[in-house]
Amino acid sequence: MENYKKIIEDIYFEVKNVNDIGKVANYIPELATVSSDNFGVNMTSIKKESFGVGNFDKKFSIQSISKVLSLTLAYRFEGAKLWNRVDVEPSGNPFNSLLQLEADLGKPRNPFINAGALVICDILISHLKNPKEDFLAFCRELSNNPTLSYNEKVAQSEKISGFRNIALCNFIKSFGNIKNNVETVLDFYFYTCSLEMSCKELSEIFLFLADDNFTTHKGNKVLTMSRAKRVNAILLTCGFYDESGEFAFRVGLPGKSGVGGGIVAIHPDKYCIVVWSPKLNKKGNSYKGMLFLEKFTTKTASSIF
Amino acid sequence: MENYKKIIEDIYFEVKNVNDIGKVANYIPELATVSSDNFGVNMTSIKKESFGVGNFDKKFSIQSISKVLSLTLAYRFEGAKLWNRVDVEPSGNPFNSLLQLEADLGKPRNPFINAGALVICDILISHLKNPKEDFLAFCRELSNNPTLSYNEKVAQSEKISGFRNIALCNFIKSFGNIKNNVETVLDFYFYTCSLEMSCKELSEIFLFLADDNFTTHKGNKVLTMSRAKRVNAILLTCGFYDESGEFAFRVGLPGKSGVGGGIVAIHPDKYCIVVWSPKLNKKGNSYKGMLFLEKFTTKTASSIF
Amino acid sequence: MENYKKIIEDIYFEVKNVNDIGKVANYIPELATVSSDNFGVNMTSIKKESFGVGNFDKKFSIQSISKVLSLTLAYRFEGAKLWNRVDVEPSGNPFNSLLQLEADLGKPRNPFINAGALVICDILISHLKNPKEDFLAFCRELSNNPTLSYNEKVAQSEKISGFRNIALCNFIKSFGNIKNNVETVLDFYFYTCSLEMSCKELSEIFLFLADDNFTTHKGNKVLTMSRAKRVNAILLTCGFYDESGEFAFRVGLPGKSGVGGGIVAIHPDKYCIVVWSPKLNKKGNSYKGMLFLEKFTTKTASSIF
Amino acid sequence: MENYKKIIEDIYFEVKNVNDIGKVANYIPELATVSSDNFGVNMTSIKKESFGVGNFDKKFSIQSISKVLSLTLAYRFEGAKLWNRVDVEPSGNPFNSLLQLEADLGKPRNPFINAGALVICDILISHLKNPKEDFLAFCRELSNNPTLSYNEKVAQSEKISGFRNIALCNFIKSFGNIKNNVETVLDFYFYTCSLEMSCKELSEIFLFLADDNFTTHKGNKVLTMSRAKRVNAILLTCGFYDESGEFAFRVGLPGKSGVGGGIVAIHPDKYCIVVWSPKLNKKGNSYKGMLFLEKFTTKTASSIF
Repeated sequence: MENYKKIIEDIYFEVKNVNDIGKVANYIPELATVSSDNFGVNMTSIKKESFGVGNFDKKFSIQSISKVLSLTLAYRFEGAKLWNRVDVEPSGNPFNSLLQLEADLGKPRNPFINAGALVICDILISHLKNPKEDFLAFCRELSNNPTLSYNEKVAQSEKISGFRNIALCNFIKSFGNIKNNVETVLDFYFYTCSLEMSCKELSEIFLFLADDNFTTHKGNKVLTMSRAKRVNAILLTCGFYDESGEFAFRVGLPGKSGVGGGIVAIHPDKYCIVVWSPKLNKKGNSYKGMLFLEKFTTKTASSIF
Repeated sequence: MENYKKIIEDIYFEVKNVNDIGKVANYIPELATVSSDNFGVNMTSIKKESFGVGNFDKKFSIQSISKVLSLTLAYRFEGAKLWNRVDVEPSGNPFNSLLQLEADLGKPRNPFINAGALVICDILISHLKNPKEDFLAFCRELSNNPTLSYNEKVAQSEKISGFRNIALCNFIKSFGNIKNNVETVLDFYFYTCSLEMSCKELSEIFLFLADDNFTTHKGNKVLTMSRAKRVNAILLTCGFYDESGEFAFRVGLPGKSGVGGGIVAIHPDKYCIVVWSPKLNKKGNSYKGMLFLEKFTTKTASSIF
Repeated sequence: MENYKKIIEDIYFEVKNVNDIGKVANYIPELATVSSDNFGVNMTSIKKESFGVGNFDKKFSIQSISKVLSLTLAYRFEGAKLWNRVDVEPSGNPFNSLLQLEADLGKPRNPFINAGALVICDILISHLKNPKEDFLAFCRELSNNPTLSYNEKVAQSEKISGFRNIALCNFIKSFGNIKNNVETVLDFYFYTCSLEMSCKELSEIFLFLADDNFTTHKGNKVLTMSRAKRVNAILLTCGFYDESGEFAFRVGLPGKSGVGGGIVAIHPDKYCIVVWSPKLNKKGNSYKGMLFLEKFTTKTASSIF
Repeated sequence: MENYKKIIEDIYFEVKNVNDIGKVANYIPELATVSSDNFGVNMTSIKKESFGVGNFDKKFSIQSISKVLSLTLAYRFEGAKLWNRVDVEPSGNPFNSLLQLEADLGKPRNPFINAGALVICDILISHLKNPKEDFLAFCRELSNNPTLSYNEKVAQSEKISGFRNIALCNFIKSFGNIKNNVETVLDFYFYTCSLEMSCKELSEIFLFLADDNFTTHKGNKVLTMSRAKRVNAILLTCGFYDESGEFAFRVGLPGKSGVGGGIVAIHPDKYCIVVWSPKLNKKGNSYKGMLFLEKFTTKTASSIF
């Protein structure tokens, strides 16, 4: 850990001064109000040593990063059967997504595009008594952090303008791959996206993907080693929309981004590192986040490749 | 190495008896003549310890696996400039490929789809005096193996029926991303695909991607560590056409397949393992090859994730 | 007219005995209950002479044929401005429709695909005080037929299973090309589709497209001659989904089909002819309806070409 | 005829002064050299009365207009069998063309997109002893005009830069829908496109589509009435690429355009009218040509609708 601290700090200050050519997401009014100056990094090792710089302790909207958490819970419930309803292939460019969904008869390409995450939410609703409460409880146990919560305003904000997600969910339902009521699925989905965490909290909650022997504070195993590895594999091939190849190429770690500007990256058997900077590049991933992580894995030679 | 031998042998005999639901590639007459009973495995560690089972020593047509070798040579010549002419993103399903090429104005999604490999061959032609001879010399040095050679019959066989590749190459040329004569590019491309190697030879020639400190017998470095890692990243996200996600998910190693039935997989810092079995699944990858590797990385817990 | 009667009768009985390889639409439960034996034809000349055979007087669900009526009313309200929100181009195969909608930024290819009809309904809602009542009144005036009405059961039936239309409407709204509430638009759209008419009634209501001098019984002009011709042009190029070219080629008249099995065809300056037979071919158009009309225009040499 | 002359002249001078926002086609060097000031109109009635204005007597490259002539000859040879190899549906937007060709397994959507015209040329080569000479002889007989000829320079010019057409032809061949040698097909295709005619000559050669009783000066019938009507139907739905709907909507006549700036339009049983103005709109059709014809059919109320 010690040797990483200095490197993290150096790169943090180097990247902080870079001219940020990205743009804050504005399709959800609530997200547009976040100051674009925020910049934080936090690493937590599998020994639970933690180190943060900048706004590492400030909560932000994790958005699509929540898709990894909902996938994890659905995988626990369904096991390998899960892959009958959602595939594990990268999706190519976004502009093909609806066409692909049609060609694939309503089976989304992977659980990290919106179509896939909606199917995952549908599956969770079929398993959970009180989906929102139960999912939150799962997240809290995962990170031993009872303060985690949804941001109601963000959830409502997405609901009002989420015509594309409504379209998507109805389209999948027309193929029979959404079993519950569309409104219920969308409501739950928007809540999962509205989860708020800091870099520190995110780097802690994702340790279960870095540490083969991870158990929650209650002593529960989250995923078998084999399944955790598989989730990491999907993260690597599909975690950054149509920039997944680029992230693997430049950073070389499994990871997931959200439009709130957060990026989680995992080095199996070593650590979880999280960066937050709200301005996004054209593909919708944090500009400074990607830059930081590229410099970090290059300097530490710690890509998985 | 010793501990791997027993596992390789056990899985080899287990998979040998599995009912092979795949089909031998028949679009090139010469490939259709290969007996589908062939089944070989060979692992070579970065310490150059080697172990093979079955038909590990019999040469076969490496086909698309050659795309990794041509990419490597082009990367040496061009460095990061290379990515102006070919991208590093997975391609989604094959049926979108021409559409994507049009949307991307002639820049192929990655160097491992045919479109990308044609652009790579075009680049090599611009750099090499005698493309076929020079490329073969590069491969021979890489593996310290002067016996490597093309199979003229296979090369000719592809030429005669390769209407789609001719179409593809002219289509890219219409965007200006092929600089040399289309016939010259295709001729060179078909030759590179016709290279023949055994599992053993393949597992040796690809050690440069497993070993950070690899140098050829002449003392030449092939790629910098950073670049070798990047090639591995592209292999992981794009090495198996639209089954790349599946291979990452099930096997968890960077790798590349060819329609001759070969699969190369690399464990960075450890080994290179090659399987050969001619019958292909629906996505065009060796059925038993994928099965063997999935069992192998599961039993040895040696995925990179 | 007299000379047509015999021809219509002859072809009617010839086609009646043809083995019908089509299938009744079953995606709306209410439509699936209609007997597939129904077969009716009715022609009305611009002199209002009328002649019918078979079940020409039995009401059926006109479904998409209503799109011509809603387009007509919207065209009256908006004039040429209408074409800013919906185009007049054939849509190619259905499987591209969502992709095209995305490429065209939410502007539907024409008013006769569902996307276009939804935009037309949205426009009508913006103009009408009581959309359902006012649209029905318009249809009644057009045909001087106060008995025309919606079928509530069919409208409800579509609502329950219309996930694709909900998807479509939300998708268009995400581009800003639906101004009213999505539920309101869909509700109105489903009602317009549920209109019921007989062959005779349909051949009367569409006379305004055949007769340049048509005025309603109240003395109102429906469309200027130039606009009526333009509606006919769109019918010819876009009236039969991806079988529009085939209908123009085989029948040679502007026309419109519905999944209820009805087909309306118009010979400018002469007549309107309507056929009803519920079994549909693979493209969703009445099998016997197309067959009848092809034989009819061939025998009477009355295509517009 | 007399009543048309004044109208043609009036509109000619009105449109002549319109600011032409189009651009001359420059993808073939030879076409780019034509002066954009050229503007001619010629009408020939089925009674062979002819009237021209402006550069009506100057030859230009008819380009894609030749596709109607090659289709006609192929239709004579093959009859209805022809439609097994090429369809009669509009193609939607150009950007889908390759995708559609793949989805349709190599059967082009219609004979007026390049893919379809290449298949038509392939069919002609299978029937003709000396394709170029025999096709030219057919055109000369059709118009009783022994001066018609190819422009060698234009044909060569297309050959050199026609990478997309080479791509297309090889792509179709990969599906087996090109029977002859690709080079032979392309060479013949480029020659047919290089035919040169004046507005007057074009309006004469296409009379066989306007006049049901047309016979050549040698007394030969060109197409049966039924087949001529069908060609007109395809012209109406497919004659202007993805602007076919627009042309039907604005002009209301079957017609065909070429990138040389010519447009042929046919009023069945009445006349053939041809306009030439080299500057093209964004969809590749003559800007002033479309404007002239829209004004002409509006003022004469002579659309077929």
